[in-house]
Amino acid sequence: MKKGFINNVVGWVMGVLPFYLFTLLPQPAWAGEVSSPNGNVKVKFYVDGQGRPTYEMSYKDRPVVLPSHLGLELARDKHASKGLKETDLMDGFQLRSEQTSEQDETWQPVWGESRDIRNHYFEYAATLFQPKEQREIIIRFRVYDDGIGFRYEFPQQKELNYFLIQEERSEFAMAGDHTAWWLPGDYDTQEQETQQTSLSGIRGRMQQAVNWGNSSVAVFSETGVQTSLQMKSQDGLYINIHEAACADYATMHLELVDAQTKALTTKLGGGSNAYTPNPKPSAFPLPKPFTFVSHLTPDATGLKGAMQTPCLTPWRTVMVSDDARDMLSSNLILNLNEPCALDDVSWIHPTKYCGVWWEMIVGRGSWHYTNDFPSIYLDKIDWSKVKPNGTHKANNENVKRYIDFAAKNGLDEVLVEGWNVGWEDWANMWKRDVFDFQTAYPDFDIKMLNDYAHSKGVKLLMHHETSSSTQNYERHMEKAFQLMNKYGYDAVKTGYVGDIIPRGDHHYSQSMNNHYLYVVKEAAKHHIMVNAHEATRPTGLCRTYPNLVGNESARGTEYEAFGGSRPDHTCILPFTRLQGGPMDYTPGIFVTKLSEWSNNTSWARITIAGSLALYLTMYSPLQMAADLPENYEKFDDAFQFIRDVACDWDESIYLEAEPADYITVARKAKGTDNWFIGGKCDENGHEAVVKLDFLDKGRKYACTIYQDAPDAHYETNPQAYVITKKTVKAGQTLKLKEAPGGGFAVSLMAL
Amino acid sequence: MKKGFINNVVGWVMGVLPFYLFTLLPQPAWAGEVSSPNGNVKVKFYVDGQGRPTYEMSYKDRPVVLPSHLGLELARDKHASKGLKETDLMDGFQLRSEQTSEQDETWQPVWGESRDIRNHYFEYAATLFQPKEQREIIIRFRVYDDGIGFRYEFPQQKELNYFLIQEERSEFAMAGDHTAWWLPGDYDTQEQETQQTSLSGIRGRMQQAVNWGNSSVAVFSETGVQTSLQMKSQDGLYINIHEAACADYATMHLELVDAQTKALTTKLGGGSNAYTPNPKPSAFPLPKPFTFVSHLTPDATGLKGAMQTPCLTPWRTVMVSDDARDMLSSNLILNLNEPCALDDVSWIHPTKYCGVWWEMIVGRGSWHYTNDFPSIYLDKIDWSKVKPNGTHKANNENVKRYIDFAAKNGLDEVLVEGWNVGWEDWANMWKRDVFDFQTAYPDFDIKMLNDYAHSKGVKLLMHHETSSSTQNYERHMEKAFQLMNKYGYDAVKTGYVGDIIPRGDHHYSQSMNNHYLYVVKEAAKHHIMVNAHEATRPTGLCRTYPNLVGNESARGTEYEAFGGSRPDHTCILPFTRLQGGPMDYTPGIFVTKLSEWSNNTSWARITIAGSLALYLTMYSPLQMAADLPENYEKFDDAFQFIRDVACDWDESIYLEAEPADYITVARKAKGTDNWFIGGKCDENGHEAVVKLDFLDKGRKYACTIYQDAPDAHYETNPQAYVITKKTVKAGQTLKLKEAPGGGFAVSLMAL
Repeated sequence: MKKGFINNVVGWVMGVLPFYLFTLLPQPAWAGEVSSPNGNVKVKFYVDGQGRPTYEMSYKDRPVVLPSHLGLELARDKHASKGLKETDLMDGFQLRSEQTSEQDETWQPVWGESRDIRNHYFEYAATLFQPKEQREIIIRFRVYDDGIGFRYEFPQQKELNYFLIQEERSEFAMAGDHTAWWLPGDYDTQEQETQQTSLSGIRGRMQQAVNWGNSSVAVFSETGVQTSLQMKSQDGLYINIHEAACADYATMHLELVDAQTKALTTKLGGGSNAYTPNPKPSAFPLPKPFTFVSHLTPDATGLKGAMQTPCLTPWRTVMVSDDARDMLSSNLILNLNEPCALDDVSWIHPTKYCGVWWEMIVGRGSWHYTNDFPSIYLDKIDWSKVKPNGTHKANNENVKRYIDFAAKNGLDEVLVEGWNVGWEDWANMWKRDVFDFQTAYPDFDIKMLNDYAHSKGVKLLMHHETSSSTQNYERHMEKAFQLMNKYGYDAVKTGYVGDIIPRGDHHYSQSMNNHYLYVVKEAAKHHIMVNAHEATRPTGLCRTYPNLVGNESARGTEYEAFGGSRPDHTCILPFTRLQGGPMDYTPGIFVTKLSEWSNNTSWARITIAGSLALYLTMYSPLQMAADLPENYEKFDDAFQFIRDVACDWDESIYLEAEPADYITVARKAKGTDNWFIGGKCDENGHEAVVKLDFLDKGRKYACTIYQDAPDAHYETNPQAYVITKKTVKAGQTLKLKEAPGGGFAVSLMAL
Repeated sequence: MKKGFINNVVGWVMGVLPFYLFTLLPQPAWAGEVSSPNGNVKVKFYVDGQGRPTYEMSYKDRPVVLPSHLGLELARDKHASKGLKETDLMDGFQLRSEQTSEQDETWQPVWGESRDIRNHYFEYAATLFQPKEQREIIIRFRVYDDGIGFRYEFPQQKELNYFLIQEERSEFAMAGDHTAWWLPGDYDTQEQETQQTSLSGIRGRMQQAVNWGNSSVAVFSETGVQTSLQMKSQDGLYINIHEAACADYATMHLELVDAQTKALTTKLGGGSNAYTPNPKPSAFPLPKPFTFVSHLTPDATGLKGAMQTPCLTPWRTVMVSDDARDMLSSNLILNLNEPCALDDVSWIHPTKYCGVWWEMIVGRGSWHYTNDFPSIYLDKIDWSKVKPNGTHKANNENVKRYIDFAAKNGLDEVLVEGWNVGWEDWANMWKRDVFDFQTAYPDFDIKMLNDYAHSKGVKLLMHHETSSSTQNYERHMEKAFQLMNKYGYDAVKTGYVGDIIPRGDHHYSQSMNNHYLYVVKEAAKHHIMVNAHEATRPTGLCRTYPNLVGNESARGTEYEAFGGSRPDHTCILPFTRLQGGPMDYTPGIFVTKLSEWSNNTSWARITIAGSLALYLTMYSPLQMAADLPENYEKFDDAFQFIRDVACDWDESIYLEAEPADYITVARKAKGTDNWFIGGKCDENGHEAVVKLDFLDKGRKYACTIYQDAPDAHYETNPQAYVITKKTVKAGQTLKLKEAPGGGFAVSLMAL
């Protein structure tokens, strides 16, 4: 099989034909084909009879993407006469030239699942020309052994300097009625439970999916879903659609064309945010059923983006394999991002932390300091004279307790939420000036607590909840970062709860994506790491800005206090949400029945051994021990694993995987010869078979196994675990039984 | 006549009646009446049979405002359940209590038309209660001898902490079909020509008014007009509606109910900005014809404001007199603003300036430095290697020429526009990152030029054109102000050309009004004066923040290069636009036929003597000598007046006035015994009769009269003037003939 062969059979002939002949030719008028390095993945690209860019994709000669169109619809704008273009970039294209190349490099991330990442692909770039508008664009493909990425590029040119995007219309025509693990497409949240249906079942499940967990905010279509979208074909192909390097561009959703689709959505179908659909209907015919079409997040006017050439879209990615483990080990999205943009990364470090957080989430304490005011103006309250409510948890005594716990157990940092004034009326009131990010409540002595922490080798982790009032945050950010530098904070957890202010904008719009990255870049100037919650889903930008050490962007552990998540939730996230970057999932709940220590009747559907497994199966350089110190103290022998486990790795090997069923992974701690293995399963249990053939041959390892007890069960017996210690060596096999909703964790310390 | 007598005949009875009886009573259920100090202005307030707050106003017992309702419609919002209220504040009110008081104080502005300003009013505040919603609001009236102000106040309370304004419905029922001088109501511009029609003629003139000058952007109704709205009744009452102290609240327009009105506008009628009307229709009946109803500027979602109690609306003002001069001498709007909020005002000073500006406006030079790029990214260009276009006027040599001119003629500062990179593609491209406000073009040596200016006793005046990309400006503002401090700038002209970014917002929305004031406050921290162009129309906030030394907010001199303005334009502006604060009109065009020195065929409809008059009739602490130095050098004897004239005053006496016809004013220069008199007239000419009875008795004054020549005419002979010098004393009378489109200026130097 030829690697990277470009099949351009008719292109050389066509290049010399006059334009008027082109439309007379049978399609495809031209065709280029490129294969991945090992030949498994192939992409064919051509311009069809209407001049529409078209591609197909296969894996081991099985179709992955059937012929699908590419293009963008541009918006009508009153400034068109001044240079903004509005004729679509959809059709009427000629193939002007093609370029191919091969790249094979290995790079080292600042932190990650492995020390070295190989970036090996064949590239194909088609330069397309619209003779009528005298405009040129480039569509670039990178073809890897485990998938492809493509993007649109807009060179600077006389006839294309600025344009407004009405909609990007990138199609992904699936070859069958695959099983899909999906979230309702939503402009403002990704915190729903994952749905598992066939593609044809999406429409019928949507209403239930939107209601479930009551998390949807701004759903746009009855067949709209989010990325990363994991699928599995009837014949066992694993296919994943997502995007890479989404910066200053709206986040992409996917709208499925099914048998009942009459038109692609141009107006908001759900949610209640005010929203102006641009009334221009698509002039192009519907693709055939089982086709996903890109759907970007709008701004307040309903437009999808303002562009200035030269510019690029994010990469649209399609990962594929016949082995589910390849979905998890793929570095395709990181590889499609730009190299690190920071000169000095010495201050960036993986972090294990605990924090003043879970007790408020569960409801046993408050972020706010007083109950005296129905609403507050930050600058009109003398906090020293305010009556405390007695439930404020970010107080000196409690924070010191967490610092002591962190110091005793080798945790690096302590997150403190609710330290700063403004929590009395912080959310959902359309209140712009909600926080100043600088003024501490009177019972939080910022200097004393940082000094105390530092004296014990621990750092405090800053918290900036913005309430989605981004203008307010940007007005105060520089001084807030200066405050952090002054007191020795080196990381901030940001939050974007509630609707975006300015009103009408959405969490995943171009302007908000610009904001999130602006914060990361400004933070980098202050040597501050960022862990952004409720921000848009990651697309691998952490390669370029490795101080973006975490995101939430999915249903995290907090939902265990809001009714709970399904046991298979954490067996899906690595296939979906984690494709673009690490999640601050905040694992480690040991006392899963919250009523044991609070009035909260919610409970986590996981065993303690399963909770330990998450430190491995949910890769992140930022790992929280989320439960209360006193809860960990009850199970100190199990907590030993959290003390021991690394959060940065030289090597990771996915041993077993099936979406929503189980994941088993072994990881080698960075700079050591120690390995850690984790296995997590769904509500059905699992028996993991772990062959220790990745260990150094001839070396012995002190092995500690944290395993569900035989009678463990996520509901009836979650705290039943067995700890086994033995010595092992390469070649041995561990058989590890996981309880329903359970899992296991293994540490292998090189002797 | 009793001053400030409160007539509350039935209130004490009603207070003890149960609520269900209230609606059975004939209206008015209660009535309070308050008179102005001299008794000329009276206001009656009561709650009508539907519980709607209602007021009437009279002047010398002639009706000014017929019974008119007050109230606000609140918006539906998804967060209502969390505390946002959505039932209207329109009806169902009871009068809970009334309060009256008198205020008589004299205060001194930092700069102004007079040294002392008397603030003398009777106040009436009605506390209104909605029993059903258990909410309380206050409507407060202040009654002056020359008009009234009223506002809504929302105390902090259990049942009213946050609300969203759907629309403010303050009515102003006019007593007849008055003549009105109006601008089309527009969310984004105030730069149209003024229309003069009867109230019933507004609808028929609207389309022409919108087309005229092509300046309208986002017109909302066929009978929508802007404030300040000047009117004159058939029987000679001058009535003006405007607002005072509009901060963090949307700018108010007025929609006229006429015989053809079917409903009040709830959606955008003109303009092309995307806009979402809130679909909730008003449940209240239309008021009768000749009633103006308030119409606030919407945000991107169509809402008018997000409020948190305790809070206030701006004051709604109705000025009235039977003498047009009282419209100009009134301090009502300044008086209704809060006292100065700045501790140190020593750095604020009136300023005469010239600048590198008019030659670009006219088209003989460019703001931008190069023609080489169809679009630019600020951070991707090495400006030192860029090819200059040769037309860039903010260059060292040209700026030095202006500095020399300023130094020679006693001007304080030199404005330089186009000094900073980004002008190559600065407007109307929806480009967010358009300027950094810190990087100078290579031919503008910021250090050298400031040093050079300072060595000659002159300062440079900074320019920050934001292109209405407010997020970008706020991101760079602090560093831009630091740069100004570093080089010794103490004033900035800001600009908001083009559509607001973030898209969907409007120039006069709540969020933008917050932005403008945010800039003024941040500038004050750096001891920087602000002159904001294209910002919303002033409402007297310069009393509270006297570093807001100027605004544009109307059709300024620049339009003389864009086709010109009518000769009566400057005889209208003092009645309308100038009510809220000074305008940086940039007067002083001596060479009115631009084709004399450029390729521009536009021309200013004014004589040279008329141009001199503007320095007096258009009060501003910031006065530009806008024409080119070489044009002034041709008429150096006339330019002597600009050298001499003050721009800060101990006393101002309006001697003659009629809207759109003529204005004559005498002003005493601050801290001196020198007087200056200016007279400006429309296209019909005027003969001013100036009795010098305001001069110090027994003192002699060196009088220089700059007058139109007998054959002067704004079109055919604009540069014909006569300068007369003589000695005058109190009691004498000057008769001064003003040519069509002309005027006069007089300096009276105490001997």
